[in-house]
Amino acid sequence: MTKNQALEILFEKIESLHAIRSSMAIIHWDAATSGVPEKSLPSRGKTMSWLSGEQFKRFISKETLEAVETLQGFDNELSDLEKAMIREIGREYKKQQSVPLEELQKYRALVTQSESIWEKARENNDFEMMLPYYEQIFDYQRRLCDWYGFTNHPYDALLDDYEKGANVEMLDRFFKAVGENISPIIKDIIKNNIQPQEVSGSFDIAKQRELIPWLTDFIGYDRSRGKVGEVEHPFCTSVSINDVRITTKYHQDNLLSALYSIIHESGHAIYEQNMDEQLQKYNLCDCASMGMHESQSRFYENIIGRNPAFAAILLPKLQEKFDYFTGWNEDMLYRAINIAKPSLIRIEADELTYSLHILIRYELEKALISGETKVKDLPELWADKYEEVLGIRPKTYAEGVLQDVHWSCGYVGYFPSYAVGTAYGVQMLNTISKTIDINKAIGDCDISPITNWLKENIHRPGATLLPDDLLKQATQESFNPIYYVNYLKDKFTKLYLN
Amino acid sequence: MTKNQALEILFEKIESLHAIRSSMAIIHWDAATSGVPEKSLPSRGKTMSWLSGEQFKRFISKETLEAVETLQGFDNELSDLEKAMIREIGREYKKQQSVPLEELQKYRALVTQSESIWEKARENNDFEMMLPYYEQIFDYQRRLCDWYGFTNHPYDALLDDYEKGANVEMLDRFFKAVGENISPIIKDIIKNNIQPQEVSGSFDIAKQRELIPWLTDFIGYDRSRGKVGEVEHPFCTSVSINDVRITTKYHQDNLLSALYSIIHESGHAIYEQNMDEQLQKYNLCDCASMGMHESQSRFYENIIGRNPAFAAILLPKLQEKFDYFTGWNEDMLYRAINIAKPSLIRIEADELTYSLHILIRYELEKALISGETKVKDLPELWADKYEEVLGIRPKTYAEGVLQDVHWSCGYVGYFPSYAVGTAYGVQMLNTISKTIDINKAIGDCDISPITNWLKENIHRPGATLLPDDLLKQATQESFNPIYYVNYLKDKFTKLYLN
Repeated sequence: MTKNQALEILFEKIESLHAIRSSMAIIHWDAATSGVPEKSLPSRGKTMSWLSGEQFKRFISKETLEAVETLQGFDNELSDLEKAMIREIGREYKKQQSVPLEELQKYRALVTQSESIWEKARENNDFEMMLPYYEQIFDYQRRLCDWYGFTNHPYDALLDDYEKGANVEMLDRFFKAVGENISPIIKDIIKNNIQPQEVSGSFDIAKQRELIPWLTDFIGYDRSRGKVGEVEHPFCTSVSINDVRITTKYHQDNLLSALYSIIHESGHAIYEQNMDEQLQKYNLCDCASMGMHESQSRFYENIIGRNPAFAAILLPKLQEKFDYFTGWNEDMLYRAINIAKPSLIRIEADELTYSLHILIRYELEKALISGETKVKDLPELWADKYEEVLGIRPKTYAEGVLQDVHWSCGYVGYFPSYAVGTAYGVQMLNTISKTIDINKAIGDCDISPITNWLKENIHRPGATLLPDDLLKQATQESFNPIYYVNYLKDKFTKLYLN
Repeated sequence: MTKNQALEILFEKIESLHAIRSSMAIIHWDAATSGVPEKSLPSRGKTMSWLSGEQFKRFISKETLEAVETLQGFDNELSDLEKAMIREIGREYKKQQSVPLEELQKYRALVTQSESIWEKARENNDFEMMLPYYEQIFDYQRRLCDWYGFTNHPYDALLDDYEKGANVEMLDRFFKAVGENISPIIKDIIKNNIQPQEVSGSFDIAKQRELIPWLTDFIGYDRSRGKVGEVEHPFCTSVSINDVRITTKYHQDNLLSALYSIIHESGHAIYEQNMDEQLQKYNLCDCASMGMHESQSRFYENIIGRNPAFAAILLPKLQEKFDYFTGWNEDMLYRAINIAKPSLIRIEADELTYSLHILIRYELEKALISGETKVKDLPELWADKYEEVLGIRPKTYAEGVLQDVHWSCGYVGYFPSYAVGTAYGVQMLNTISKTIDINKAIGDCDISPITNWLKENIHRPGATLLPDDLLKQATQESFNPIYYVNYLKDKFTKLYLN
C-alpha cells in the first residue's frame, strides 16, 4: 500500500463517517423536537443501530489498520494534519479492537436493558432493582481498563475516553483544590444565611420565546447556520459545520431555566460553528474533548451570562417583557442569577457548587474501579459524601445515587469532564482578561473580541491537539486548577461573605 | 451457497435497506418541515448521496446475484413470499446492472444539474435554456430502453419502471377511452357555461388547522402511528410502517387546497399503514406500484372526498369554523368541490380533466422515445395538444411544456401512473359498491367498511403481486378503463349537463 493509497482509504472512510453522523444527528433531532410514534421505536432503534454499526465497521477493519500502519511508516513525510488524523484514528482503533467482540455484544445488550430499568428504578426509588445492572456494568468497566491498558491507575483508561490524557494524578490534584476551597465557602454561605431575592413567578412562554433571538445574537450563535428547537432535555447537535442546532425547554414558573439553557447550548454551538472546515477531511473537525466542549458552554453560561455586566444589559430586556421586574435593579438581578446553595441534584446545581457534585462522583467511580468500594454500598457512601461535602443528605435514592443516567448507559469516567471543562474555561478567562476588558465588551453588547479569541485559540483547531496541549498553546500553561478555584472564591466571597 | 445461506444474505441486505430508507425519509422530512440552513446544503447532499450509494451497493453486488441465482434453483422449495421477494430483487437487479456504470455516472451528474436549470428556465420562461438538457435526458432514456430490453415498444421498458407490467398496448387503450369520452364532456361544459359558486374568500389558517384532526380521523389515518407536518409541497413519507407522516400547506385564500391535500396524503398514508408488517422481512412491505399508491390517495380524495355524502358532513364542520358558509347548502358545496374547467396546469387540474393532462404527456413521451418527435418541437406540439384536448392554449412555456419537474429529473414514463392509478381506484369502487353502500358509510361518518375492503384487498398484500394481478385478485378483472370513464361521464353529466 502506498502512502497515497493509505490516505485515500482513510479520507473515504471519514466521508462515510460524516454522512453517518449527520444522519444520526438528524434522526435524534427529529425524535427530540417532534417526537416519534411509540410503536415505531423498535424500527427507529434498528435504524440507529444499523448506522452505528456501519460507523464501527468503517474503522475497526483490517483495511484501516493497514492504512494506519502504512502511514506510520511515512511519519516524516506527513503534514501535521495527517499526523493528527492518524494519531486520533490510531488511538480509537487500538481501544476498540482491544475489546473481545463477544464481550462487547453482551455488554451492549446489557446497557440497552439497563437504561430503561434505570428509568423505572428512579421512578420507584428502588436501588435494588438497579443493583445487578450497576454491578455488571462496573464489572465490565473494570475489565475494560485491562483491555485498554493503563500505566498507573486503572481508572486512567476510562478517563481518557472522555478527556484525552486525563488521569487520576491530575484529577486528584484538581478535586483536592476544589474540595478544600469550595466546600468551606458553601458552608459559610449557609451559616451567614443570606438569601437573595429569587426570580420566581409566572412568565408567559410566548414572551420568553421572544427573548431568544436577542440572546442568541448577543452570544454569537449564528442562526443562519442552524435551527433552534424545543425539547424535553435541552442539547446541542451538529449535523454539519453549517447546521448546528440548539434546543431549550420553557417553564412557565422558571424564566431563568430557558434563558440559561439557551446560553449554555449556544456556547456548545459556537464551538462547533467556529471550527476550521478544512479539518473535516481529516476527521479533526471535532471537539478536542468533552471537557473542552463543556468549557465553552459554561464559559458563555457562567463567565459571560452570570457576570454583573450581563445582568445590567439583561434587566431592561426582561423589564420590556415582564412587569414582574419593575423595581428591580442590576445588583438584584446579578444576585438572583448567582444564587448559591447546597442542593442534591447535580443538573440543578449553581456555578459555585456544581463541581462539588462532580467531586463526589469522581471519588466514588475511582473507588469502584480500583475495587475499594462495592456497588452495593453506593447509596450509603453517596449520602455520606453529600453530607461531608455539601452539608446535606439525600432522603431518597432518586435524589441520591439514582439521579444520573450516566452509569446505566455505561458512561464511567464521563463526569469529571464537566468540572474540568468548567475550570478550563476560567483558565482561558485569565488569559483573555490580560488583553480584553470582559465587562466592557459585555456592557457594549459586543462580545466579539472575546469570542474571536476563543475562535482562534480554541474553536478553529478542533481536534488537532490533545486538550491539554491546546490549553497550553492558548494560555501558555498546562491545566492549572488555581484559576478556577480563585475565580469562585473571589466571586462568591464578594457576593455572600463581605 | 445453500438455500438458507442465500436467504440469509438477502434478509440481511433487506434489513440494511430499511435502515437506509428510514434515514433518508427522516432527513427529507427534516428539510421539508423545518428547512435546512442554505450553507449546509452541500453537506446534506453528500449525506443523502452516501445513503443512496449504500442502498445501491447493497443490491448491485455479486453476492446478491449469487443469492438470487442460488434461490432460483430451489424454486419449488420456496414459499410464495420468498418467490415474490426473488422476483422483485431479480427484476431490479437485471435492470440496474444493464446500465454501463460510466453512462450512469455521467447521467447522474447531468440530472443533478438539469434539475436546478429547470427551476431557472421555468422562472425565466426560457425553453432554449432547457433544450440541451432535455435532449440529453431523452437521448439517455432511449438508450436505457435498449439496455433494459423490450419486446414491442421501447417506451414499455420505461413504463415498467413506475408501473410494473404496464405497456403501450394497455395505455393506448386506456388513453383512447379517456380522450374519446372525457375530452367531449369538458368541451360541452364550456359550451353550457355553467359556473357553480366557488369557495373563495379569506380563511383563518389557525381555524383551517383545527379541522385536520377531524378530517384525518374520518379518513382513517392513524395519527398515533405518524405525524402531520406543514410544508411547501405536500407529500406523504413512510419512515416505517408505524411512522407514516403526512403534510399539508395552508393558504389563507384557498381553504379547499389544504383540506383536499390532507385527504390525498392520508390516502397514501393509509396504504402504507395498513400493509402487512410480516412482509417487511421480504422487502415486500411496499406499494405494488406508483399507480397503486396513487389509486389510494385519489380514492380518498375524489371518490370519498368529492362525494355528495361527504359534502353533506363537511358543510356543518365548515360552518362551525367559518361564517363564510352561512347560507350554503349541501348541493352548493358539492358543486363547489367539483368545479370542472379546462386548465393549463396539471397539478391544479380537477377530477374530470386530470387524466387529459396525462394523456398529453403520455403521447408526447411515447413519440419522443420512439423517435417520431424531436425535443426541439415540444413547445409547439404541447400547445397544439392542449388546444386539441382541452380547448385552451398555453401562452408561455412556464404554463406549458416547462411546468413539470419530472423530465428534468429523468422521470420519463412516470406520468401515466397518475392517471392509471386513478382509474384503478374507480375499478375498486365498482367492486366495493356491490357489497357496501358507499354513500351511507360516508353519511354515517364511518367509512371503515370501505377502508377494510381496501386494507384486505389492496393494502395488506403490499408488493407481493404485480399491480394488474393484485387488481384482478381484488376485482375479478384485469385493468379495465371502462369503469373510470363511465364514472366520470355519469358524475359530470349529472353535475353539469342535465
